[in-house]
Amino acid sequence: MKSDHDHGHSAAIEIEDTTAVSKGKAPLLPSSSAPARYGSNEKGLAILDSIVRVCAAVAALASAGAMGNSDQTLPFFTQFFRFQASYDDITTFQFFVIGMAIVGGYLFLSLPFSIVCIARPRAIGPRFLLVVLDTVALTLATASGAAAAAIVYLAHNGNPSANWFAICQQFGDFCKNASGAVVGSFVSVVLIVALVVLSAVAIKRI
Amino acid sequence: MKSDHDHGHSAAIEIEDTTAVSKGKAPLLPSSSAPARYGSNEKGLAILDSIVRVCAAVAALASAGAMGNSDQTLPFFTQFFRFQASYDDITTFQFFVIGMAIVGGYLFLSLPFSIVCIARPRAIGPRFLLVVLDTVALTLATASGAAAAAIVYLAHNGNPSANWFAICQQFGDFCKNASGAVVGSFVSVVLIVALVVLSAVAIKRI
Repeated sequence: MKSDHDHGHSAAIEIEDTTAVSKGKAPLLPSSSAPARYGSNEKGLAILDSIVRVCAAVAALASAGAMGNSDQTLPFFTQFFRFQASYDDITTFQFFVIGMAIVGGYLFLSLPFSIVCIARPRAIGPRFLLVVLDTVALTLATASGAAAAAIVYLAHNGNPSANWFAICQQFGDFCKNASGAVVGSFVSVVLIVALVVLSAVAIKRI
Repeated sequence: MKSDHDHGHSAAIEIEDTTAVSKGKAPLLPSSSAPARYGSNEKGLAILDSIVRVCAAVAALASAGAMGNSDQTLPFFTQFFRFQASYDDITTFQFFVIGMAIVGGYLFLSLPFSIVCIARPRAIGPRFLLVVLDTVALTLATASGAAAAAIVYLAHNGNPSANWFAICQQFGDFCKNASGAVVGSFVSVVLIVALVVLSAVAIKRI
């Protein structure tokens, strides 16, 4: 009798009480009395988490790659100048490439933890680690995307008050690539927000 | 002995096991055997949540106010020009003021929900609502802060490749105010990250 108590909580409950206990309290309890019902729900959440995570990682790496390859050389030159625009002319775009690469790398590296949650839907540790790191990754991805968006907006529209001229009239392809990269980063941001909310739902259900 | 099992999980355990069980497994269980201890823990988390929330709201509104008041008129003028810089000359700074004002307003308006969590530490609904809305507010605050930071960096350093000149040499006070506002927004971002993590801890403990 004593070994039963040490081993599990429901194990000591008599047979005729099992249904009442599992109906009344089981959703809040990591009880071993109803593993199948709650397990499938949480397993579904964990699978969804992995899928969204892969999509967010692909979006982040694709946007980093799009920005990293966005150089353009104009087809005319003078004796002293070659007119060329590249992402590393603009510090904010360098930050964008590095930031989105870190976010994409983190999202791929965190996949094993997400898979652990599929295999063991009641494991609280990996989910909690994921929700904290996802929040930090969300901040980095949003900061990269928003900073690049501010510069892309300036490149498109310029700012007459500050005498900053629009450069997209000359470097159209460069601007198109940079804009596409910013859109990709925003897709990634939306997916990471979904990841954080999914993790909160999963923690709530455990 | 049977009525003990119906009432609580630890109640049926012999006296010599109580400490071991409560040390090892109790933090995950909403067991009825120790309501006072866990109630105070969760109440402490909820109080901390409210305090951090007020600090984040003050930081957000202060940064919006600092940016909103950052206009500067130079002490000389020509026949045709008055040299003046204001936050609404730059679209990104307008976005910053609006975004941080929304975030600050949301954080103050969400205080009642946080106070509900102090009064009822086991209420899962308000906490879940808060973690979702906090994540969205985090995205908005980070986007505002990062976009403004990109423009402030440009105003300080300029960009020779794109022929964007630094304007902070002329408008030093304007730049100082804008930089201060950006720093305030980053303080707010860090505090909102702490809020999301606190909510995740609280949901985990319920």
